Amino acid sequence: MKTAAILGGGVIGGGWAARFLLMGWDVRVFDPDPEAERKINEVLANARNSYPGLFDFALPEEGQLSFHQTISDAVSGAVWVQESVPERLELKKKLYQTAQAAMAEDAILASSTSGFTPSQLQDCATRPEQIVVAHPFNPVYLLPLVELVGSDKSAPGLIDKAADILSSLSMYPLKVRGEIDAHIADRFLEAVWREALWLVKDGIATTEEIDEAIRMGFGLRWAQMGLFETYRIAGGEAGMKHFLAQFGPALKWPWTKLMDVPDLTDDLVNMIADQSDAQSGQHSIRELEAIRDTNLVSMLRALKAKNAGAGALIAQADQLLKPDPGPENAPMLTARRTVPVDWTDYNGHMNEARYLHAFADATDRFMEIFGADADYIARGGSYFTVETHIRHLDEVLAGQQISITTQCLNGQGKKLHVFHEMRVGETLVATGEHFLLHVSLETRRASPPVSPVAETLSRIAEAHAKLPPPDGSGKLG
Amino acid sequence: MKTAAILGGGVIGGGWAARFLLMGWDVRVFDPDPEAERKINEVLANARNSYPGLFDFALPEEGQLSFHQTISDAVSGAVWVQESVPERLELKKKLYQTAQAAMAEDAILASSTSGFTPSQLQDCATRPEQIVVAHPFNPVYLLPLVELVGSDKSAPGLIDKAADILSSLSMYPLKVRGEIDAHIADRFLEAVWREALWLVKDGIATTEEIDEAIRMGFGLRWAQMGLFETYRIAGGEAGMKHFLAQFGPALKWPWTKLMDVPDLTDDLVNMIADQSDAQSGQHSIRELEAIRDTNLVSMLRALKAKNAGAGALIAQADQLLKPDPGPENAPMLTARRTVPVDWTDYNGHMNEARYLHAFADATDRFMEIFGADADYIARGGSYFTVETHIRHLDEVLAGQQISITTQCLNGQGKKLHVFHEMRVGETLVATGEHFLLHVSLETRRASPPVSPVAETLSRIAEAHAKLPPPDGSGKLG
Repeated sequence: MKTAAILGGGVIGGGWAARFLLMGWDVRVFDPDPEAERKINEVLANARNSYPGLFDFALPEEGQLSFHQTISDAVSGAVWVQESVPERLELKKKLYQTAQAAMAEDAILASSTSGFTPSQLQDCATRPEQIVVAHPFNPVYLLPLVELVGSDKSAPGLIDKAADILSSLSMYPLKVRGEIDAHIADRFLEAVWREALWLVKDGIATTEEIDEAIRMGFGLRWAQMGLFETYRIAGGEAGMKHFLAQFGPALKWPWTKLMDVPDLTDDLVNMIADQSDAQSGQHSIRELEAIRDTNLVSMLRALKAKNAGAGALIAQADQLLKPDPGPENAPMLTARRTVPVDWTDYNGHMNEARYLHAFADATDRFMEIFGADADYIARGGSYFTVETHIRHLDEVLAGQQISITTQCLNGQGKKLHVFHEMRVGETLVATGEHFLLHVSLETRRASPPVSPVAETLSRIAEAHAKLPPPDGSGKLG
Repeated sequence: MKTAAILGGGVIGGGWAARFLLMGWDVRVFDPDPEAERKINEVLANARNSYPGLFDFALPEEGQLSFHQTISDAVSGAVWVQESVPERLELKKKLYQTAQAAMAEDAILASSTSGFTPSQLQDCATRPEQIVVAHPFNPVYLLPLVELVGSDKSAPGLIDKAADILSSLSMYPLKVRGEIDAHIADRFLEAVWREALWLVKDGIATTEEIDEAIRMGFGLRWAQMGLFETYRIAGGEAGMKHFLAQFGPALKWPWTKLMDVPDLTDDLVNMIADQSDAQSGQHSIRELEAIRDTNLVSMLRALKAKNAGAGALIAQADQLLKPDPGPENAPMLTARRTVPVDWTDYNGHMNEARYLHAFADATDRFMEIFGADADYIARGGSYFTVETHIRHLDEVLAGQQISITTQCLNGQGKKLHVFHEMRVGETLVATGEHFLLHVSLETRRASPPVSPVAETLSRIAEAHAKLPPPDGSGKLG
């Protein structure tokens, strides 16, 4: 069994706990804060609402969460120990000494630090070789980035091993090539933060105006391409060198006040806090978290549909989550998934179009099962839907797990006639009956499927023909 | 007729031209570059592929694009003149003098400059009072942000008038409170760019790693909330002051090298260009633009579905684009829209679930027409779909305009039975037959609709009962 220890709860530690738990790991928490259990459970509730819906297939069964009174107890049996305590080197030193006395020598001791280098942390340790920096970003359960930093004291292969584990959590381990203060991303965040403080202090923009300047403009660019690829496009066919030549002189212009840092006087602190209240004060932090998570899930799923950026990672994870369809002589399991937060509508339940979305995905999965997979389609054969009949039998809510079983009613020649039953638990919530024709993607006309797809489908169809016709079928044609 | 003049083509001028044209304005272009027409048409092709699909309703008919040999000719009749020429004050001065001699005194002369303040530009002008900075972001046809800056020499009301026009283009005019170098957003871009150059120069990260550090992490946060609202959440219930107190000391840490600027030596330029080739060189600039635009449309539509950030702007624009449904005694026009680039699938055509998406939207629009609108739903009544029958008669491609007409087959009591016909031009491409029941959103059970919804629907249903039953209907129940 895979076990992780979380040393230090709070928003970051809780986010780590959620990633591990929802990916099927057992999680053992140490945090002396009497509020730690409540705090972690709040983060976990947010994560359960949002994270499973990123995937088109159900996640493994959630692991066990336990709270422990001592560090030694918490790290017992853990293969990954994640430290997320406040940024005080003395505190980390004490914690590492105790943890390393009890934890396995081949386990990974990772720090969420944004402020310290691996070497600084390793100087605190009994066994420097098992320490890495694994710096995540809030919300840890939705944002994939982890900056992974080692030093020459890290054990050979440790970074690769850590990267593999992080990848299995559908995270994006970015191996940082050198040890510097603040790693990579926080360098950018810090630069922008300083600039923002000046803009507020000088009365050029309020906190809200700054947020709009970001999210109405370059924030959208950066969410999917980052900085250099965006500028590569700006350079046009002339290329990156041309862009650099064009933009180069601007580096000498006085476009930044970053040579200096504004003092956080009481006046400036109050100004920022007041502006932030005016901007966002109508929402509680819980509401803001829910808005943020819904937006992130919506955008990540949008990117996934195009196999782009952070969405491509989730598409990869999907490949490993597909459930076994079961034997051919019974309706086959073609979907088991969590309804995402972006699938609901003004009625507070899954929108009707998402029923067909789920059924269409189930048809795709069934096609994959009988061999009409991505490779087959790339070779020029596919199925087009001609007719669909859906019965909505019950409401489905975001966060519920739906499963779909598929019975093939006809699979001879060009024809594919399937009947899907969608359930929440044992309750039948919808049926979808679909008639498709095999086509050539070149001529866009009906054509017979190619071997061995034709034979496999025909075999399954014959096995399913022995089953009774499903209740509610027979509406097409 | 609304007419805009574009002085200076290229990527930015072309993006402006596309926004105006696709929103129904006539556009007159002056650019001495013999390639200008080709370049603008390339940008326009990208915009036609992506921008109309952001909206759930068709845009107004595209305006007329014309190219002109002289500035005087181009600005004739224009109410908005957009200057996007290279950042040389002498060049702008010459252009402003000529333009202002020919353009209307009450027209707006706006500059796309990122480097100059309004006052600097006004010093070049014959009539300083009609000049504003309207600084957009690439791709101008998709990103809504425009930094709008005036000075005390700008005519009273000019900024508000400019903001209204920009809003009518579904842009987000951000009124900047003061004149500073680089306005707001470029201050951030410049700070990040300097930091990025250092990271590459020092060998800490490649261009690709930096892009991943952005798009796998904070890029996703910034695309929907920006900086301060994100940090407000990080501060938790303790609020923004707590966050500032916690983060304040980090301002004094040496987390940035921005006190200095790296020299763009040949070595550094080559290093960046080589890394960028390794990262993105497998795609042409045209391909990268298409990937970027598809991602942006997907994310913007995802945000629109949640009425968040830049998506909320598009939702607002939708409200003004709804077509007139026509008389009650005929099938009513419930949709006219462009198929977005994110609605297609591996078969290269509109995915089957998007047919139901479009039909479901058409049902919503029909409900709105007979009074079951957002206000009605907020008061607790709505319709739930019980059964659906779809016939796919022809393929539909991204960028095609679809229209849907709706015949009501039954609207008595709790029942709503509609039949949608979807067309591309005159060609029937799909039909959707839907049976719905009126429900109480409190009890989630069937209930009769409330006056006047019941009466209006009943009246339309009676008028439609006199029409012949549509071909292909009668499959439900």
